[in-house]
Amino acid sequence: MAESTNMRLRLPLLCIILEVILIILFGALVEYNDDTHAKLWNANKSHSATRDDYENEFYYRYPSFQDVHVMIFVGFGFLMTFLQRYGFSSVGFNFLIAAFSLQWATLMQGFFHGMHHGKIHVGVTSMINADFCTGSVLISFGAVLGKTSPVQLLVMAIFEVTLFAVNEFILLSMLGANDAGGSMTIHTFGAYFGLMVTRVLYRPNLDKSKHRNSSVYHSDLFAMIGTIYLWMFWPSFNSAITNYGDPQHRTALNTYYSLAACTLATFAFSALVNPEGKLDMVHIQNAALAGGVAVGTAGEMMLTPFGSMIVGFLAGTISVLGYKYLTPVLESKLKIQDTCGIHNLHGMPGVLGAVVGAVTSALASPGVYGDGLQRVFADAETGKWNPQSRGGFQAISLAVTLGMALFGGLVTGFILKLPIYGAPPDTHCFEDGLYWEVKTFQYHFYTQENQTNMVTVELTPASAKGSKVQEIH
Amino acid sequence: MAESTNMRLRLPLLCIILEVILIILFGALVEYNDDTHAKLWNANKSHSATRDDYENEFYYRYPSFQDVHVMIFVGFGFLMTFLQRYGFSSVGFNFLIAAFSLQWATLMQGFFHGMHHGKIHVGVTSMINADFCTGSVLISFGAVLGKTSPVQLLVMAIFEVTLFAVNEFILLSMLGANDAGGSMTIHTFGAYFGLMVTRVLYRPNLDKSKHRNSSVYHSDLFAMIGTIYLWMFWPSFNSAITNYGDPQHRTALNTYYSLAACTLATFAFSALVNPEGKLDMVHIQNAALAGGVAVGTAGEMMLTPFGSMIVGFLAGTISVLGYKYLTPVLESKLKIQDTCGIHNLHGMPGVLGAVVGAVTSALASPGVYGDGLQRVFADAETGKWNPQSRGGFQAISLAVTLGMALFGGLVTGFILKLPIYGAPPDTHCFEDGLYWEVKTFQYHFYTQENQTNMVTVELTPASAKGSKVQEIH
Amino acid sequence: MAESTNMRLRLPLLCIILEVILIILFGALVEYNDDTHAKLWNANKSHSATRDDYENEFYYRYPSFQDVHVMIFVGFGFLMTFLQRYGFSSVGFNFLIAAFSLQWATLMQGFFHGMHHGKIHVGVTSMINADFCTGSVLISFGAVLGKTSPVQLLVMAIFEVTLFAVNEFILLSMLGANDAGGSMTIHTFGAYFGLMVTRVLYRPNLDKSKHRNSSVYHSDLFAMIGTIYLWMFWPSFNSAITNYGDPQHRTALNTYYSLAACTLATFAFSALVNPEGKLDMVHIQNAALAGGVAVGTAGEMMLTPFGSMIVGFLAGTISVLGYKYLTPVLESKLKIQDTCGIHNLHGMPGVLGAVVGAVTSALASPGVYGDGLQRVFADAETGKWNPQSRGGFQAISLAVTLGMALFGGLVTGFILKLPIYGAPPDTHCFEDGLYWEVKTFQYHFYTQENQTNMVTVELTPASAKGSKVQEIH
Repeated sequence: MAESTNMRLRLPLLCIILEVILIILFGALVEYNDDTHAKLWNANKSHSATRDDYENEFYYRYPSFQDVHVMIFVGFGFLMTFLQRYGFSSVGFNFLIAAFSLQWATLMQGFFHGMHHGKIHVGVTSMINADFCTGSVLISFGAVLGKTSPVQLLVMAIFEVTLFAVNEFILLSMLGANDAGGSMTIHTFGAYFGLMVTRVLYRPNLDKSKHRNSSVYHSDLFAMIGTIYLWMFWPSFNSAITNYGDPQHRTALNTYYSLAACTLATFAFSALVNPEGKLDMVHIQNAALAGGVAVGTAGEMMLTPFGSMIVGFLAGTISVLGYKYLTPVLESKLKIQDTCGIHNLHGMPGVLGAVVGAVTSALASPGVYGDGLQRVFADAETGKWNPQSRGGFQAISLAVTLGMALFGGLVTGFILKLPIYGAPPDTHCFEDGLYWEVKTFQYHFYTQENQTNMVTVELTPASAKGSKVQEIH
Repeated sequence: MAESTNMRLRLPLLCIILEVILIILFGALVEYNDDTHAKLWNANKSHSATRDDYENEFYYRYPSFQDVHVMIFVGFGFLMTFLQRYGFSSVGFNFLIAAFSLQWATLMQGFFHGMHHGKIHVGVTSMINADFCTGSVLISFGAVLGKTSPVQLLVMAIFEVTLFAVNEFILLSMLGANDAGGSMTIHTFGAYFGLMVTRVLYRPNLDKSKHRNSSVYHSDLFAMIGTIYLWMFWPSFNSAITNYGDPQHRTALNTYYSLAACTLATFAFSALVNPEGKLDMVHIQNAALAGGVAVGTAGEMMLTPFGSMIVGFLAGTISVLGYKYLTPVLESKLKIQDTCGIHNLHGMPGVLGAVVGAVTSALASPGVYGDGLQRVFADAETGKWNPQSRGGFQAISLAVTLGMALFGGLVTGFILKLPIYGAPPDTHCFEDGLYWEVKTFQYHFYTQENQTNMVTVELTPASAKGSKVQEIH
Repeated sequence: MAESTNMRLRLPLLCIILEVILIILFGALVEYNDDTHAKLWNANKSHSATRDDYENEFYYRYPSFQDVHVMIFVGFGFLMTFLQRYGFSSVGFNFLIAAFSLQWATLMQGFFHGMHHGKIHVGVTSMINADFCTGSVLISFGAVLGKTSPVQLLVMAIFEVTLFAVNEFILLSMLGANDAGGSMTIHTFGAYFGLMVTRVLYRPNLDKSKHRNSSVYHSDLFAMIGTIYLWMFWPSFNSAITNYGDPQHRTALNTYYSLAACTLATFAFSALVNPEGKLDMVHIQNAALAGGVAVGTAGEMMLTPFGSMIVGFLAGTISVLGYKYLTPVLESKLKIQDTCGIHNLHGMPGVLGAVVGAVTSALASPGVYGDGLQRVFADAETGKWNPQSRGGFQAISLAVTLGMALFGGLVTGFILKLPIYGAPPDTHCFEDGLYWEVKTFQYHFYTQENQTNMVTVELTPASAKGSKVQEIH
């Protein structure tokens, strides 16, 4: 409590040092790949003497990249603006840690699985992968939202990106797992990492900021901007780095159906769990997206629209039920304060997606996939195809991910607990005014003496701190 | 009035039943098409022994699909958030009925004109078509906005999607009509269907909710998000399912010019019809889009930028004049309560678009189109080309569409009139609190005893129902 | 002050006259190009007997166009909604002048460097170029925001678009300059043109509208929508009209890294220059974008990710420092009232980008670029390659741009000073109510007698003009 939240030295120092390190490492290690290098493009190509400029991978990956990019910056950013006084921080810190993470991820992912003669090669595919890794950090951000300083968030990103790259390397390169849309690598990892961090950072007196830990009318509409963009572009997300041709096309299609079915389940259960049958914005904003998470692994497989819709419906259902019944228990019993309910949107649906992926892999056969089998499963290409063992490796991948996430979150949580980052006091969580110049504040008054009606008005405080407000009546 | 608006059983039951039916029908009838199926892609292709994965239609249709998708979910959703207390419902119910409609449309459109050996084949083109059909339902939603329960909206969608598919089948398959951007199939159909529904559901006492049937400052800004996205992506909408090559390119270009000219007309007439020369947000939000509607049929033809701009200018003009002079008359004389003024945005501009399409078709000739004639007109491909009769068929298509829409809207309206859907009472139209958990409300007070100034404040009611507010002064 | 701001005749007359002129000129001069014309597409192509419809430039330029289009209409439009009472005008006038400018730019750019046998050929590339030119006008709009009538803005656009096309012709066609992302043609030109206009229109009594020249909580969130969209799509902007293949791919990549580094610099310096270490929304909304401006010329060159990050970091730094220390001086000493601080976002970063472009050009060599040299530098293609003189021409281009912008802004400023456009009086700048039907206003009250706390409430005035408000205490 006594710790100052003044960011004047801490934040600039950390940002500048990190960026200088990034610039030096990029200077030493990063090179244009064949499709972005003036000299290498259209030179020494093995598969064709002369290539048309139209065949540059830019034209086949960049539209997907832009959709993913929108999800990362607008989708995640605005989804978290639902809190009444935390809109600047939600979209602003999202912006900051995403801008850092995508640079750091380029290095870490390049280091673990993209080195060519000692250099990291970059192009549109590395951009997508870096954005994916960033997504994982932003998921974790959702768990600690409102309770952390920007310095803490950057430190969390340093560790989480690194571990993400290690886990991704184990899954994709060592275990040969399929996880194009990242049910495991992105969602499960990001969720359980974040949940463990917020567990370690448990605040027994968070009640003191309870009145700010909710939405107001227009903040919920801003959040819907995030929701809708995530929902619309999720087909692009899941298909962004599949193989070209039918796998990419099929992944987008499966995700589209999964999300549509998920949305109906979300509305159904949101009304059902409310005594008056009223819909809850929290469910619509979040659970309707679980269908995208849950086909993140199997989406590129022959899941069929039928299968996708079942998975989506299931994901929406467990997500709403999680928000209603599980989140309060997690907080009261396990001391996990999960601001955005990432366990319901990314955690459980991510695990569901991993399981669906394992089962769908185990059921894959040349009879169903034909020659397309090797466009989906790398094992089939190398001739070591064995669907049951593939399914097994997928299951192992889930276990590895859970282990890495929980362990990484534990260590990172303790690092973030050091009293040096300017974290907000318990009385000022979920409050933009701590880290931002806020010209107007919203304040709450009771209009009746029995305190049943609260009036919200916006104030321009003359002095930034401790301005007392005379109540209206 | 006595009818309960509690959705606790009705909405979940309907959603779950519908989704289960959808899943069963998808399981029985829907298959991946050649471009999304692992086995069929790159196998048994007639036109080429080996196809490059880059030639998958995904890469040539999916960017258009995503733009259309944004229009359906962000464009329509946010356009309707202009009402002061109906933002959750606007964007939320838009989300729900769109998620349902796109699934149901896939089946209905597949059934009427996409069956292959008893199966419906799906891919990116079916995704675009399903979104198109959904757009039609959302247009009708605009007419009944604020006056219907989500259950009513889903029931309306069931019928409207079905009839849309029938009408589309008659126009495109039987009459061989051109209507790539849907001036007839989407806009005219959706508008007159919705107008007839709202006519049947006429509420003589809607005045009781009059104070909520308007915007506040920030709700108008949210609505502009919808407007701008619709405006920007309309070139993608009109060109999304044209033939490849010059027709798609030309359609986007024509729509771009039509919209630009329309916008200048909208600003001009909005200022002109106001005694003080002030612009009206309602016009800017809506009429500026009429240019996209009005080139929905002729956009793929050799309309020329010159012709497109004339059509756009005309569309903007009639749309503003419609809002100013026709809508009040429709309500007072014909008892058509058109919340969003869809008659001005989709109805009249849709009919204009159909007429422009008929005329442009009748004027088409090999001299102007060269070999490109058959890339625009299917008749030319089959050798039965006769521009005058083509123009005639286009005109017949408009008549069929109007008939189908009015008849369908009439029947659907009476079905929706049954007192079983939990429709809002006349006193609580345009009110989110009926179907949503709303944490804060905006209330209006007079600050002067002569009631000239109204103060809007947000309240957090302690008890959800009937909380009386002590007035400020 | 005595001048009426009534737009009833002025705005409609100007809009209608301009659109009629545009339509006539389009009818006389504009034709479909080879890729949009039904007859010419797939006919008389030199490089190939039969072309696949997939090779239409639509598929390789249109996704970039759409991203640029979003930046122009959503990006610029919402970025300027930060003012508390000027949201309608920001997004609305942005819409109007952009819709006009893109038509006028098509003619002017076509006239100066796109005539084919006396006709202007249009297609997706002309659409991108027209949007680019429009961007320049919108930059200037930022300088005069809140202080001009829509008629003034349209008149400004007429002149600025014309001069933009002349300057672009001199730079690209006569000097052979590289400027794919428009550091010079768009940003430097738009910024210094706008700064000169606002200098000429200097209002010594602007203080009278001071209380409206700031943001409120939610207006800052709307502005962040603009910021984030500009940030995300800037890689598409800079790469939209480069040559195909590696240059386009590389430009997107360089811009992505420049922006990421810029964002960290922005957060760092925003906290550093604030006594309490608090972040300022103005910096985040604007300076974080300077990295995109600063690689607008060199982005297509072999700048490397390393170089891009250094440039981006520098751009963010000077932009924040400019907002903090230079803008107040410009206003007090040079009488330049720059509402949005375009000097910091477009002016200085644009000049930086021009310098970086000149240096990077001067360092280019066949050793680094290989055969790719001619895909970046037109000189190399024509065999007149001399990197030092190329660098020199780039530097001359900057000087020409500055001269054209300052001279053009001076003349245009004096034209705009004529008292015939209905400009807002000093007391009513930054106020939507002057030109828009505004149903509710926000008013400010003091809640304490010592006037330290100001309450903002929204009012619905019964009479539109001069409604006095009874203060709440």
